[in-house]
Amino acid sequence: MKITTPTLLLDKAKCQRNISRMVEKAARNRVRLRPHFKTHQSAQVGEWFREQGVDAITVSSLRMALYFASHGWKDILVAIPVNLLEIDTINQLAGKVKLHLVVVNMEALEVLERQLVHPVYMWVKIDTGYRRTGMLPHNHVGLDPMMQLLFESGKFLFEGFLAHDGHTYQQTEKEAVRAIHNTSVYLLHLLRNRYSSLFPDILLSIGDTPSCSMLENLAGVDEIRPGNFVFYDLTQERIGSCSFDEIAVCLACPVIARHPEHNELILYGGSVHFSKDFLKLEDSSLLFGRVVELTADGWTSPPADDMQVVSLSQEHGVVRASDQQFEKYKVGDLLCVLPIHSCLTADLMKRYRTLEGEWLEHLSGVPF
Amino acid sequence: MKITTPTLLLDKAKCQRNISRMVEKAARNRVRLRPHFKTHQSAQVGEWFREQGVDAITVSSLRMALYFASHGWKDILVAIPVNLLEIDTINQLAGKVKLHLVVVNMEALEVLERQLVHPVYMWVKIDTGYRRTGMLPHNHVGLDPMMQLLFESGKFLFEGFLAHDGHTYQQTEKEAVRAIHNTSVYLLHLLRNRYSSLFPDILLSIGDTPSCSMLENLAGVDEIRPGNFVFYDLTQERIGSCSFDEIAVCLACPVIARHPEHNELILYGGSVHFSKDFLKLEDSSLLFGRVVELTADGWTSPPADDMQVVSLSQEHGVVRASDQQFEKYKVGDLLCVLPIHSCLTADLMKRYRTLEGEWLEHLSGVPF
Repeated sequence: MKITTPTLLLDKAKCQRNISRMVEKAARNRVRLRPHFKTHQSAQVGEWFREQGVDAITVSSLRMALYFASHGWKDILVAIPVNLLEIDTINQLAGKVKLHLVVVNMEALEVLERQLVHPVYMWVKIDTGYRRTGMLPHNHVGLDPMMQLLFESGKFLFEGFLAHDGHTYQQTEKEAVRAIHNTSVYLLHLLRNRYSSLFPDILLSIGDTPSCSMLENLAGVDEIRPGNFVFYDLTQERIGSCSFDEIAVCLACPVIARHPEHNELILYGGSVHFSKDFLKLEDSSLLFGRVVELTADGWTSPPADDMQVVSLSQEHGVVRASDQQFEKYKVGDLLCVLPIHSCLTADLMKRYRTLEGEWLEHLSGVPF
Repeated sequence: MKITTPTLLLDKAKCQRNISRMVEKAARNRVRLRPHFKTHQSAQVGEWFREQGVDAITVSSLRMALYFASHGWKDILVAIPVNLLEIDTINQLAGKVKLHLVVVNMEALEVLERQLVHPVYMWVKIDTGYRRTGMLPHNHVGLDPMMQLLFESGKFLFEGFLAHDGHTYQQTEKEAVRAIHNTSVYLLHLLRNRYSSLFPDILLSIGDTPSCSMLENLAGVDEIRPGNFVFYDLTQERIGSCSFDEIAVCLACPVIARHPEHNELILYGGSVHFSKDFLKLEDSSLLFGRVVELTADGWTSPPADDMQVVSLSQEHGVVRASDQQFEKYKVGDLLCVLPIHSCLTADLMKRYRTLEGEWLEHLSGVPF
């Protein structure tokens, strides 16, 4: 089957190795791996996790929860502050699976207390430093009444405290990632101690791919929820979470023009394929992707040093290349690009093509 | 019908006024309006153009051409350098509609000359200053043989020269946009003169929304191809192409958390809904959207000055608000955001909900 339009290639062997590595690390640390499925959003990729013994998952929307529930997943955490407007979907799902919800304030808890039909597993999200959302760990005035309501109400099955250290994405040193992780674990332990008389078995859950990939010791928590590691991408490579050859997806794009006057190749492949995410390079220029070459059984690694995607518009990408690289490509060839952010690229591409030529589903390609 | 998840609202009356205004401007200038449908990608929105007399359109992919052909459009320009890998689709389409293709080099022309089954309308793309793609207008050494082949081959119906002044997107002054437009027109006229002995009826086509919106006099060309004007967005407002109250789409997002400690509201609505596009403000901070309030018949305009979307992750948006604005919203409310780039937001949202509650299709929500 010939590739004729921008196509997201998935190297199944690399992807399965990424999964095994995380499954083994979780086992060594005796923590539960509850992988975040928002990166792949694919029933078939989900099966590769199931084959390795994973039975609990994380998602980022109720639609995603419904999708994976329909594919046989029975233990699903929706890791975003609960959307009260979707109470009907929550009640529908909670009757079918072990549904876990996240709260970050008393208001939401009070509404859930009135509106839940089935008991639901509950996590309180703690802001351990990312400063996006969550209860601040020292905010006992806010937390105490929430914990009391979680304890008293028959609607809630309190599981524990959950954090997402999104600020690891700003790091490029393992020691910085370790410091963030250790701070999180310390803050979560303080909370566990504070509320252990109400709840003797509080679980602690953390989730970012950099911590889970870069640190060997994750034993301070009970559960890890990394997602991006299933594919990795250039953002993770820069942080230090993966090597180039662990990146399991790349976008094959037709070359539609050559501009020898400025050594630029024009790709059919733009922001509706890659997303607009970028990395800022040391000279302040922006990087939108790096180029690899297709081989008989995958693609080359590392990517070329002397050519890269330097800009994207809606359907066009611009690759600037050295003379030598420029001469390799002609109009009508395919050029393969490692993405900056695989979650967003997969969401836009809506399906995957394995190296064996099989098409795999992505939820964003499933009709409403 | 209650809105419970991020939903792209479309104000049909504003959208239809945007269409009428451009239709009237094209008529006053005696130029053909060949609107770019990549912004809306919707069969139903397309009908609103047809009702106003539009019968020729622009698209940015062959899939989009097939989609609109299946909805009765008969005169379709694919405004991206031709993707030779899709020759089968080209031949299929060219047998059914007046198909227009764009070339930027001799290589593509030679391949088309061999592989086309039906004659195709051809445009040579000229790079009049944007420096993305196209033949440089002074590159006679490159252009002469292309024009000769276009003339000699029975496969081609040469239409003319086409430019896209994407560099108007970097401007915020009408005079700067006018200078770009006048330069383009001048360069295109030189080319028309140069090749008028081969082709006495060369057409000139330009296409960016800023030029077409901000300038009254467009009579120097034969055809205009703006797209974004159908909805507009904050990017266009900043350039000066539209006023806030001409923006015809906004994204309604549930409020899922409130953080009084930093006056931030958390939205269910992130980069998989908005895209990662942003505007850089004068203080170098990034803007990901501006907030309006729903009213009985639409939304308020202008947007609030004292609250804005300041960051996006995959499913979360962060709105920073003044005390007064912050107090207006509670968890479970909807908050409405004008998008930075309506083309990308619509592509991600995959459908529209009109203010009357009707769902309209977007090609990205149509199964493969």
